[in-house]
Amino acid sequence: MIEKEQLVKMIDHTELNSHSGEKKISNLCDEARKFGFFSVCVNSCYTRFAAEKLFGSDVLVCTVAGFPLGACTTATKAFEAGKSVEEGAMEIDMVMNVGALRDKRYSYVKEDIAEVVKACGPALLKVILETCYLTDEEIVEACKICVDAGAQFVKTSTGFGAFGAFPDHIRLMRKTVGPHIGVKASGGIKNFKEVWRLIQAGASRIGMSAGVTMLEGFTLFKYAPQAWLEPEIPCHVCPSRHASLGKLPKALYTYYKQKCSSCPHKDEYNKFYD
Amino acid sequence: MIEKEQLVKMIDHTELNSHSGEKKISNLCDEARKFGFFSVCVNSCYTRFAAEKLFGSDVLVCTVAGFPLGACTTATKAFEAGKSVEEGAMEIDMVMNVGALRDKRYSYVKEDIAEVVKACGPALLKVILETCYLTDEEIVEACKICVDAGAQFVKTSTGFGAFGAFPDHIRLMRKTVGPHIGVKASGGIKNFKEVWRLIQAGASRIGMSAGVTMLEGFTLFKYAPQAWLEPEIPCHVCPSRHASLGKLPKALYTYYKQKCSSCPHKDEYNKFYD
Repeated sequence: MIEKEQLVKMIDHTELNSHSGEKKISNLCDEARKFGFFSVCVNSCYTRFAAEKLFGSDVLVCTVAGFPLGACTTATKAFEAGKSVEEGAMEIDMVMNVGALRDKRYSYVKEDIAEVVKACGPALLKVILETCYLTDEEIVEACKICVDAGAQFVKTSTGFGAFGAFPDHIRLMRKTVGPHIGVKASGGIKNFKEVWRLIQAGASRIGMSAGVTMLEGFTLFKYAPQAWLEPEIPCHVCPSRHASLGKLPKALYTYYKQKCSSCPHKDEYNKFYD
Repeated sequence: MIEKEQLVKMIDHTELNSHSGEKKISNLCDEARKFGFFSVCVNSCYTRFAAEKLFGSDVLVCTVAGFPLGACTTATKAFEAGKSVEEGAMEIDMVMNVGALRDKRYSYVKEDIAEVVKACGPALLKVILETCYLTDEEIVEACKICVDAGAQFVKTSTGFGAFGAFPDHIRLMRKTVGPHIGVKASGGIKNFKEVWRLIQAGASRIGMSAGVTMLEGFTLFKYAPQAWLEPEIPCHVCPSRHASLGKLPKALYTYYKQKCSSCPHKDEYNKFYD
C-alpha cells in the first residue's frame, strides 16, 4: 500500500486545455499547495504566472514544450523549453517527434531530445512518447533513444491522442529504462484505482487533472482495500480495446487488431474484434 | 456555382497529425501539385521538406505556429513562425491564445498576434480562433483583435478541438472582418457539400485533409446540383448540436444549451437538449 504523503508527491497536477484562463491556473496552484502535489503542469504561457503563484511553496512548476504534437522543429522545442526554465519551470515535459520515430529516423529523434536536454540546463526533462501511436517495439526503441539522449524521464501520453496511459505500456517502459529513469503515466487517468494500477506497473510519477477527486477516492478506498486490489479483467485495461480506427493511423489499428486476435484472453473476455 | 479551377485554389491541403511521417507529407505534396491546390499545410518540422518537394510548382507551403493549443508563449510562436518563413513557408497559421481571449485579456491577445505578424515578414498570417471554445460575442471580439493586430486572415479551427467549422461561425466572422480580410474554414470538413456551404457563408479558403475525395464528390455532384443545393436542416449544421460537455468548458456548454432552448427551430428539429 501507499501513504497519502507519498501519493501526493507523485502527482503532477495538470491543466493543459487551450481554453483555460488564469483563474483555472490560479485554482490549480492553490490546490497543489493545499494538497501538497509534486508540481503543477501547465502550458508555457503560464510558466511565469504559476511560478509567482507558487513562490515560497515546495510545489514545482512543470511546463510542456512542443505540446501536444511534438511536430514543431527541434529549435522551437529547445527555445520554448529554455525560456520556460528562465521563467521558473523546474521540469519540462516535451513531446517526442512521433512521426520521425515511426519513420525510423532515430538519429533525428535523438538529436531532437538532446537539444532540449541542453536547453533545459538544470531542469529535469521528461519525454512524452505518445504511446497510443506506437507499437510495443516502437515504445521500446523510443525509450532507449530518450535515455541515450540524456532525458531523465519517459512519459506515456499528452492526453490529446487516441488514448492515454495503460499498465501494459508502463510495464514495458519501466522494463526498458530500468530503475534509475523516471516513468510518468498520463492521459485519461481519473481515479485512485487507475493510479494504483499504474504505480504497481512501474510508474514513478502520475500526470492528471483529477488529482483532488482521486484523493477523495483514495480515502474511501482505504476502508475496502480488497475491492480495488482485485486484479482487473485483462481486456478492460488493454490498449487494444481503445484502439479505434477513428483516431489511429491505419497501420496501428491493424497492429492492435492482430495483437488482440492472438491474445490468450480473446475467448474469455474480448468482445471488440469479433 | 464554382469551377474546379477556382475550387482547388481555395484549398489548403492539410496533414497535421503528430504521427504522420515523411511519406505522408511527400504524398500530400504530390497530390497538391497534381490537383493544383493552393497550398499544403504542415507542421513546422516539415516546412523545409515540403518546400523542397514543391520547388518549381505554384503550390505554397503553409506552416502552423503554436499549434494546436495556442498556449505557448508569444516569443515561442514568433520564433516558430519566423523560422518557418526562413525555411520556405509563405503562409503561417498561428493559434490565438484562447484562454487569454476568454479571460478578456485583449491587449495580451493582440500583442501575441502582432508579434507573429512581425516575425512573418512577407508571409501571410492566418489566426486560428478555435471557434468551438468561444461564444458568438467572443468570436466577434477575436476577429476585431486579429484585424487590429495586422493579421490578413481569420480561421475557425485547428481540427483538434471540440468541433470544427460551421457556416454560422463563418458568416459571423465574414460579417465582422468585412470583405478585405480572408476567412478560412477548417476542422472536420469532409465533402463538397460542406465546402460549398462554407463558401456560401463567406469562406475564402478551406483547410482540409480530404481535398482529393472532396474533388471526386464535386465531379459527381455536378450531375445532380439540386440535391446538394437544397438548404440544410438548420439543426444539422448548428454548432449547438456538437457542443458536448465532454470536450467543452462548462460555461460554453451552458451557453450553447441556452442558445438551443431559445432557438426558433427547437420544436421542429432539435433532439439534443430535451
